[in-house]
Amino acid sequence: MENITKIPEPTIKRLSDYLHLLIHFKQNSKIYVSSTGIANEMGIDAIQVRKDIEFTNAKGKPKIGYNVDELIENIENSLNWSKRNIAFIVGAGNLGKAVLDLQVSNNYGLQIIDAFDDNPENIGKTINGLEVHPISLLVQLASQVNNKIGILTMQRNVQKAVDLMTLAGIKAIWNFTNQKIDTEPGILVENLNINHSLALFTTKLQTIEEFTH
Amino acid sequence: MENITKIPEPTIKRLSDYLHLLIHFKQNSKIYVSSTGIANEMGIDAIQVRKDIEFTNAKGKPKIGYNVDELIENIENSLNWSKRNIAFIVGAGNLGKAVLDLQVSNNYGLQIIDAFDDNPENIGKTINGLEVHPISLLVQLASQVNNKIGILTMQRNVQKAVDLMTLAGIKAIWNFTNQKIDTEPGILVENLNINHSLALFTTKLQTIEEFTH
Repeated sequence: MENITKIPEPTIKRLSDYLHLLIHFKQNSKIYVSSTGIANEMGIDAIQVRKDIEFTNAKGKPKIGYNVDELIENIENSLNWSKRNIAFIVGAGNLGKAVLDLQVSNNYGLQIIDAFDDNPENIGKTINGLEVHPISLLVQLASQVNNKIGILTMQRNVQKAVDLMTLAGIKAIWNFTNQKIDTEPGILVENLNINHSLALFTTKLQTIEEFTH
Repeated sequence: MENITKIPEPTIKRLSDYLHLLIHFKQNSKIYVSSTGIANEMGIDAIQVRKDIEFTNAKGKPKIGYNVDELIENIENSLNWSKRNIAFIVGAGNLGKAVLDLQVSNNYGLQIIDAFDDNPENIGKTINGLEVHPISLLVQLASQVNNKIGILTMQRNVQKAVDLMTLAGIKAIWNFTNQKIDTEPGILVENLNINHSLALFTTKLQTIEEFTH
């Protein structure tokens, strides 16, 4: 496991892109693919592709390349996407539904088994086959499961939700809110902050002549 | 404008976090804030906060700090959030709705004036006050507007959508899909790839003992 966790972040991101491409190749009955083949599709250098794939311990054959099935398996293992870690989603509005859509279509790494919300408009509804429970039931329901993950997609009462997740024994939080959250030491937090992306986008817009007026 | 575009990406992200905090301070009738006050709330160093704020040209007063209103204005200007650039959203499913929710609540930098989709289930519905048009009308409707932006929240037929956006004269694309998109030279693309974030999250999970079994 130790070497897996040392994969650089840019490599992790690219590996997920390669996987997307490889699944497409597989659907088109391709059996082997070369690093050059991947590189051309991604618009990057073949040396970069080979270096990235080395982290997954996949071995290519000279002049033939990588076996597509094997490479898919190696990348999935490296990203921890071959396992299904139990997860709870807290926030069943549009953002929560969007994350569930993606999970249902990809099924990577997480298995979302329950949804919670504090908004009476969402409670009791069924989204992607999950009944939305009141957040007051989070601790009770989640406490029955070991080694669990929380996906935070509420945009209000965020810290309250984090505190309940902590009480429920959640060990890692995928935070989709635009807020910094306070967690106990030892809890892993991965932030996906849409406002950060918007800020990068609109700031770069100023470099385009048409948008400077 | 030239100095604005040279703000480092980590600074841009932090500035958007400071703004979030400053708006909270303003709502609580706070008139001045020090770099130390911001730093403590963010859990970072005050020197970092001062360096970041220097990029916005805001000036603090010794022993008093920054005027909250002025600092908000300077940060909004630096992030290009005081302007409302006309934008079209392509993809009116849950992800598109989530982006619209966020825009409606924050109203930063973009003004989304039309929504499009190729999914008959979504076409004709109204989301956040916008009627969802068939994507076949994109070129016709968007061509009437200068200096426009596309927000891409469809998960299928992605390249087809990009090609229509290009035909419609869109100059910049905020890409929420998990796909690499091909664009003409000169079109600005900012990617927000949820699978990248998931890959970082699940890979780091392997560093937590409970998740290695």
